Amino acid sequence: MPKLHNKELNISNIGLRAFSENIQESGGSSTHVDWQPPAGGDREIGSKLADLVNHERIEAANHEAFARYLAANPVLVGVGVAREDLPDMDGKIILHAGAPVDWNDMCGPMRGAILGAVIYEGWAENLVDAEKMAVDGEIRFDPCHHHNAVGPMAGIISPSMPVWIVNNTEHGNQGFTTLNEGLGKVLRFGANSPEVIERLKWMEKSLAPTLNSAIQKTGPIELKPLIGQALHMGDEVHNRNAAGSSLLIKKLVVGALDSDAVQNEIKQMVSFIAGNDHFFLNLSMPSCKVMLDAAHGVPNSSMVTAMARNGVKFGIRVSGLSDQWFTTPAPVVDGLYFPGYSIDDAAADLGDSAITETAGLGGFAMAASPAITQFVGGSPADALVQSRYMRNITIGTNSQFTLPALDFAPTAAGIDVRKVVDTSILPVVNTGIAHKEAGVGQIGAGITSAPLDVFVQTIASLHQSVISSA
Amino acid sequence: MPKLHNKELNISNIGLRAFSENIQESGGSSTHVDWQPPAGGDREIGSKLADLVNHERIEAANHEAFARYLAANPVLVGVGVAREDLPDMDGKIILHAGAPVDWNDMCGPMRGAILGAVIYEGWAENLVDAEKMAVDGEIRFDPCHHHNAVGPMAGIISPSMPVWIVNNTEHGNQGFTTLNEGLGKVLRFGANSPEVIERLKWMEKSLAPTLNSAIQKTGPIELKPLIGQALHMGDEVHNRNAAGSSLLIKKLVVGALDSDAVQNEIKQMVSFIAGNDHFFLNLSMPSCKVMLDAAHGVPNSSMVTAMARNGVKFGIRVSGLSDQWFTTPAPVVDGLYFPGYSIDDAAADLGDSAITETAGLGGFAMAASPAITQFVGGSPADALVQSRYMRNITIGTNSQFTLPALDFAPTAAGIDVRKVVDTSILPVVNTGIAHKEAGVGQIGAGITSAPLDVFVQTIASLHQSVISSA
Repeated sequence: MPKLHNKELNISNIGLRAFSENIQESGGSSTHVDWQPPAGGDREIGSKLADLVNHERIEAANHEAFARYLAANPVLVGVGVAREDLPDMDGKIILHAGAPVDWNDMCGPMRGAILGAVIYEGWAENLVDAEKMAVDGEIRFDPCHHHNAVGPMAGIISPSMPVWIVNNTEHGNQGFTTLNEGLGKVLRFGANSPEVIERLKWMEKSLAPTLNSAIQKTGPIELKPLIGQALHMGDEVHNRNAAGSSLLIKKLVVGALDSDAVQNEIKQMVSFIAGNDHFFLNLSMPSCKVMLDAAHGVPNSSMVTAMARNGVKFGIRVSGLSDQWFTTPAPVVDGLYFPGYSIDDAAADLGDSAITETAGLGGFAMAASPAITQFVGGSPADALVQSRYMRNITIGTNSQFTLPALDFAPTAAGIDVRKVVDTSILPVVNTGIAHKEAGVGQIGAGITSAPLDVFVQTIASLHQSVISSA
Repeated sequence: MPKLHNKELNISNIGLRAFSENIQESGGSSTHVDWQPPAGGDREIGSKLADLVNHERIEAANHEAFARYLAANPVLVGVGVAREDLPDMDGKIILHAGAPVDWNDMCGPMRGAILGAVIYEGWAENLVDAEKMAVDGEIRFDPCHHHNAVGPMAGIISPSMPVWIVNNTEHGNQGFTTLNEGLGKVLRFGANSPEVIERLKWMEKSLAPTLNSAIQKTGPIELKPLIGQALHMGDEVHNRNAAGSSLLIKKLVVGALDSDAVQNEIKQMVSFIAGNDHFFLNLSMPSCKVMLDAAHGVPNSSMVTAMARNGVKFGIRVSGLSDQWFTTPAPVVDGLYFPGYSIDDAAADLGDSAITETAGLGGFAMAASPAITQFVGGSPADALVQSRYMRNITIGTNSQFTLPALDFAPTAAGIDVRKVVDTSILPVVNTGIAHKEAGVGQIGAGITSAPLDVFVQTIASLHQSVISSA
């Protein structure tokens, strides 16, 4: 000890930050290492995790799942109708965001959106009757994810709604999302007033056919190059889609003018898209969906293939764990609120749009989008840190999606549940925030993270399927 | 001395870097300060500069000139015709980029472009006859800058050409530029084959009237907000205009569809702009021109109001030094060359487009555009350094143009000749590189800087007008 005290001390502190701070306050030099015990300190999970780390079968499975994700080629082929193009849409069915949830448990905005969809479909003439149908079990509710689809915020898809059709030309699977309605009073935030229904009807009768005519003339539109370009133009294609939407217009207008669409409807289409910088979100989402569905179902793979919020539960699915949802209560986001609103007004985290983060975009590609920090909070410097940090929990990187400000580094992609549980580094998610009451709309945006618990839950199942049943 | 040698030495080295390196190589610690004597070491100029530094009349004049630059409000009001809208365009006149230059001294691309313009105007039927006219002095050559205009590369404007009309609604002055032809075989790089002339005719007969109809329906389009948005989408609005061009299309299409323009011509217009990511350059240039012309002519101001290259000479104009050009041989740019080409094939630096850097954009706003480094060279990190470095030589910053990656810092703007000569920090310019032979086109792009000599030249004149004649 005396010998030690005669030398200058350089201390590394692991674990509790306060020890390090005390040393620094006393004038000493100490480097703090951020570390938490794996699995939040749960010994049993930690022990199971140890069995899974660097496990040959998982590594091989992840290699395959990740290669399938990388090879997937999402292509926009047209605009269809949910009833006709999505599987299993017969009768009075309404799809919603996130994992399965009963009417009684649903959050305000999701209920509001469902009632709007019932009116839109003509199944009821007013909100009271619509609610009675929902309560009486006359409507089947099902996650979008169970029908090859994804939906932003409440994520409502009812049978008559037009949907983007995205084909994965590499593996043959399809992905669907409704057309983006814009901001303000819109169905996905739970609004269901006559103007909302009217807009949905216009989208069905005019916008969708015009878009479809345009795409039939342009021919199939490859979406990965469009996303890659958008990343070089300041989008992260989750909460910022200004560039993607503009690039899309450029392609669609030429097609529309080439088609037999009526000039006035083309004008309405362009005005609508030009006035809605979020329009491309509903194409980045199904692109991510088809890439991740291609990676889903590889036995033994620990790759996350979906993260989704139903406004009550945050849920994930894992490639090697069949179609099981792992869920935990959804957090309320401590983000940037619009004037007049606070976290007390917020619904819990909501929407399938975290599919973008699951695919290495959104929060994982924050470095591409310094301007988004004005919307979701943080600084451009934070954005760079975040994108790099995510590499600690992913299987690999995606060189089709590069980040200019990080010297064109590829985005981190393919979240590995083992790495999340081992490091306690949580997948970052950029998200819009809905008012907890139906119909008020968006009241903010923020940066949040997927809850650790939901990843911890997967470890026992993975252990069971990879080791115990092997 | 013995006392000094017993302490640890921390050395600061000013001037020759080799001294510092020697100390470091011997294991010592030395910090090198980049410094050069003002005015490249010219004692007489250095002494005059000393009289001008912090001179009350210059400071007041710069304050006024810079305020006028900031207040200027460039607005796109339509597409006109050079003969009708530019001042003093009677007879056989052809405008070119940069300071005045005689036919005999012009570089290859400028001559090629002029011959193309002669054919386009119908003044001659073939290149031989056209060249004879030029040699025989039948054509009046004049800088674009003398007619409230600017032109990229060769910068050729002949009387029948359509021009963007940009009004500065704050001070009433106007700025003009031709419509951007795209890349490849185009007049501004000296190409003059029949396909080039044909495209120019189509632009005159179809594109220009369609654009003008669109603008008459959209109403005047404010250009500063568009430039500001483009900076947040990865453009620096000199060599990268992908976002600006997309944002412009969004506005123009709606206007065009609202007008009585024919659908097929609208389609051609959109296809042409959608296929040319440089299209917006020809709007960022006249925007900068009207901002800087508003700042020009303030007695005693040392603010640079134009930097322009005619392919032979690099020229600048200074607000307080009337319409005099200060020129020096234009450098050949050591940039990134397209495959098959090298610096031996390059024309000297060419074009009025350095007006963007003069206004705080282009190279001064590199930090907004990490993706441009793939085109002009350097790394995204260099881009940040460059944008910050330019603050050393400007009068102020422009908060209308902000740089997301630098935490939304405003661009450095308003180059002060005194600061350039004092620090030897040279204004950075992003530039395209033309082949030295007419008609080959663009062969590369790069980052270059304005030559010190041209700023040194202004000091004597400024001293004369501010002090000797006062």
